Amino acid sequence: MSKRKPLILITNDDGYHAKGIESLTEAMKGLGEIIVFAPDSPRSGMSSAISTSTPLRAKMIHQEEGLTTYICNGTPVDCVKLALNEFVDRKPDLLVSGINHGSNAGISVLYSGTMGAAIEGCIFEIPSIGFSLCDFHPDADFTATTQVAHSLAVKVLEKGLPKGVCLNVNVPVGEIKGVKITTQTQGKWVNEYKRSQDGAGRDIFWLTGNFENWDMDNELNDEWALANGYAAVVPVKIDMTAYDFVAELQKWEI
Amino acid sequence: MSKRKPLILITNDDGYHAKGIESLTEAMKGLGEIIVFAPDSPRSGMSSAISTSTPLRAKMIHQEEGLTTYICNGTPVDCVKLALNEFVDRKPDLLVSGINHGSNAGISVLYSGTMGAAIEGCIFEIPSIGFSLCDFHPDADFTATTQVAHSLAVKVLEKGLPKGVCLNVNVPVGEIKGVKITTQTQGKWVNEYKRSQDGAGRDIFWLTGNFENWDMDNELNDEWALANGYAAVVPVKIDMTAYDFVAELQKWEI
Repeated sequence: MSKRKPLILITNDDGYHAKGIESLTEAMKGLGEIIVFAPDSPRSGMSSAISTSTPLRAKMIHQEEGLTTYICNGTPVDCVKLALNEFVDRKPDLLVSGINHGSNAGISVLYSGTMGAAIEGCIFEIPSIGFSLCDFHPDADFTATTQVAHSLAVKVLEKGLPKGVCLNVNVPVGEIKGVKITTQTQGKWVNEYKRSQDGAGRDIFWLTGNFENWDMDNELNDEWALANGYAAVVPVKIDMTAYDFVAELQKWEI
Repeated sequence: MSKRKPLILITNDDGYHAKGIESLTEAMKGLGEIIVFAPDSPRSGMSSAISTSTPLRAKMIHQEEGLTTYICNGTPVDCVKLALNEFVDRKPDLLVSGINHGSNAGISVLYSGTMGAAIEGCIFEIPSIGFSLCDFHPDADFTATTQVAHSLAVKVLEKGLPKGVCLNVNVPVGEIKGVKITTQTQGKWVNEYKRSQDGAGRDIFWLTGNFENWDMDNELNDEWALANGYAAVVPVKIDMTAYDFVAELQKWEI
């Protein structure tokens, strides 16, 4: 049997032109054949959204030895689904998403398009990782994150991931002290809107807000790791069942 | 202390004009004061998407004793966030979302705007339930689902739900045999696109597909319950951490 190079599918939610996905693509070079299949413009905060009533389009915009790039008018999950259903001729060995410009730690995993794509890869039984840097700047410095991404991709290509589990990786700004395996920090966003007025004087509301951490001092949390200079890796499950509560609920006699 | 009526927040992803949310609102009447805060048009498949770069607007379109209705230009999660941050003067005692026109069983919980809203309510520590009927028809018969919704709302108003847990309720078409407490069926969607051409002959792709159930005969699954004539209630956790895999991952030395 001839040994083919690993196939690596790359996507993101900031769009194909973002520095984060360029950095991630650089970090994957040498590890396998790369297909980039990314949104044609920013799709931040898209979670696992899918396009149910608009048609998708995709276009190849670049091809060189070992690297092919497509852009698509859909969400990050649309990109993964369309790539795997229609554009990729074998199952990828790895899916990496990002590097997101901005944190996806804590409950932000639920809103994140970057993680939506990784979760979708996981549904397809592809070892999948989402990467985010805690810096929204378009020209952010992705040096530390690309190093973590390269090391982790090598490990995951070697070891795989359990069925139904993907990884959410967040990296703090600047030099990092190391990598911590963590859990999803619980909390919520507060003061979420800035009210202003449109040209006609009507109220409009812009999303903003601060994250309120309910479990501040827990050293197993991803927010703790980030606040203390570590990259945080959370293993994320696609089965959202609250197994602990099934038996109790069965007693309710609905 | 004066005892105020429970406050019930209602939203959906099919839009305020859908029969499903009308039916759900009817089912909640008598249980408390109702605020409907729903998208101004369909937002199916929006998952937990949030609007990060467009401003939100909301408008009150109806008010009668015990019922106020607002419409909003955002996603289901935007509706919940905006209502709770800016329009509701006390914390709701219950959030109900739906009734969705179409199933949100199995992994569809991840794509569902109906469940995105319920998950958001749960983040706000409000007992929250998403309801879906396995019938896409705009004029579907919601009789059985409204009965389940009423009973379950009464129970949840009485007992509450654990922190971090909401409910995903799916109801089959027609008369039901009863209600089963279930888990999220694992599987994936296959054959997901129908390829056609636009007016200029360019390829376009429409989302479609069939659900492939990986665990067909498990009587604890929501898909099993639905296929056998039962309404299926899955308790859903907002903490997606794969705790089982944390210790193993810590051995990886990344």
